[in-house]
Amino acid sequence: MTTAPQTISAGAEALRALYADWSEIIATTPGLTTRLFRSIFDEWHQPTREPEDVTYREDTVGGVPGIWTLPIGADTTRVLLYTHGGGFAVGSAASHRKLAGHLAKALGVTAFVLDYRRAPEHPHPAQVQDGVAAFLALIERGIAPTAITTIGDSAGGNLAVAIALSLREQGRPLPGGVVAFSPWLDMENRGETLVTNDATDALITVPLLEGMIAGVLADGAVDPRTPLANPLYADLSGLPRLYLNAGGAESLADNATRLAENARAAGVDVTLSVVDDMQHVFPFSAGNGPEADAEIAAVAAWYRG
Amino acid sequence: MTTAPQTISAGAEALRALYADWSEIIATTPGLTTRLFRSIFDEWHQPTREPEDVTYREDTVGGVPGIWTLPIGADTTRVLLYTHGGGFAVGSAASHRKLAGHLAKALGVTAFVLDYRRAPEHPHPAQVQDGVAAFLALIERGIAPTAITTIGDSAGGNLAVAIALSLREQGRPLPGGVVAFSPWLDMENRGETLVTNDATDALITVPLLEGMIAGVLADGAVDPRTPLANPLYADLSGLPRLYLNAGGAESLADNATRLAENARAAGVDVTLSVVDDMQHVFPFSAGNGPEADAEIAAVAAWYRG
Repeated sequence: MTTAPQTISAGAEALRALYADWSEIIATTPGLTTRLFRSIFDEWHQPTREPEDVTYREDTVGGVPGIWTLPIGADTTRVLLYTHGGGFAVGSAASHRKLAGHLAKALGVTAFVLDYRRAPEHPHPAQVQDGVAAFLALIERGIAPTAITTIGDSAGGNLAVAIALSLREQGRPLPGGVVAFSPWLDMENRGETLVTNDATDALITVPLLEGMIAGVLADGAVDPRTPLANPLYADLSGLPRLYLNAGGAESLADNATRLAENARAAGVDVTLSVVDDMQHVFPFSAGNGPEADAEIAAVAAWYRG
Repeated sequence: MTTAPQTISAGAEALRALYADWSEIIATTPGLTTRLFRSIFDEWHQPTREPEDVTYREDTVGGVPGIWTLPIGADTTRVLLYTHGGGFAVGSAASHRKLAGHLAKALGVTAFVLDYRRAPEHPHPAQVQDGVAAFLALIERGIAPTAITTIGDSAGGNLAVAIALSLREQGRPLPGGVVAFSPWLDMENRGETLVTNDATDALITVPLLEGMIAGVLADGAVDPRTPLANPLYADLSGLPRLYLNAGGAESLADNATRLAENARAAGVDVTLSVVDDMQHVFPFSAGNGPEADAEIAAVAAWYRG
């Protein structure tokens, strides 16, 4: 997917450099605990510039704590229900606050970033349950289901899809749309870009994913083909319109492309954006990298379209 | 200073528990690098609730990067120039953004949180120089010197004082006031509360401070009695009005009390607040702990008084 070498922006390079730094720490720190993994991955906010004219408010929605991002002048009847990435185990509302703020501002709406229960303390389906509970609580607060978009990145992109699938299974109203940045879906840890992009991806490796899979699937107690844990095995029919992206340089790129293919085959309205030379969840450079800003503008155009 | 056992709020306990957790990591992780120390200490924001109705903007002032905290409706002609704590080596504008936001909101003004150059890469006086440069740049932008308050916590409380002292030495205009929360001043690593509060302080230890001193004083190349590095040795006459605090349970409590004594002897208008059973920089529980909120309200009353 990466072809000719190309110049990436300083902002995109800052994200790549942070990933390379984390990889170095992971490689050189014996016995790195989940506790320290969480500390390191909370730096994920660093490549993102503070979005201007956005305020924040902590809340608990459907029993799930999180942070509202409230752009000044936003349409408060519309909500992005944001599930953060981090292999279901790390990352937080804090690490994704600024990214969600940029998205909410570009779309002219609010966002609620969930601090869902994380693995390994809470394996699948705790994360999906928390997302569904928050969605239903927003409806109880008077938000129209179609005014909610489930959205997330990496493992949180998986959740954005799985929350919609779980709602459909339960006969509940569906969100108006689903957005997944660099979704991580394949709990069997397969996919050709794991091999073909191994040299260009600065963060994701097969062993790193193995550890995350062991956590969320309770050391094999949950089948890796469980559709709500691995939407590549899900019946996607009836899903709302779907925006997917991936970086061309990342090992997980074909998670997005395979989901796009499956969703189109199931009759879902799919928009897929794969941007050359970009790393995992490249919108993290929002405010500092034109590639991220262009992608967020593309999401805004899709949202309004 | 801590007498009868007393109940502290859940918010204050969350700060104590975070310190205890860091202490455990420091004790059990061999060869913890400055890089990982920085990752861990950037969690300092966690006990602080997101302040509502505050926006943020990244900027560079006098060559120093940082984050503006901009409460809605704040008086933008008044600035808190905030220098964060972390032993001159760790901590950041990001770790102190929410705390500065609470303070700015309570005082009805703006705050600029400096990402000054950190030790050990940049020993003393780099941090003081950055603070002075930012102060002078604010004046060039049209802010009245007396409308600026230098403010900080721990090592940043030291800097809030040292910046004012350096301005006085240079014959520059002085800030309207100085605020230091749990200032860390004693570069000789003495003081009786290091002993008497050792059992109640959840974070600060003599060896931890030794490491920080080695970093900022360039392994002994800078004299620990240098007044701008250790304001306990400074001539404090002519300093603007000074607000100092400390937690009654903390090992550094007598840094604040000794500075208060010296400043009063030099004719400075000093307000000192020592709150029983509180840990180092207890205002970090802002929004979650009544002790922190009461302290910030006291600073606001002092500021307006």
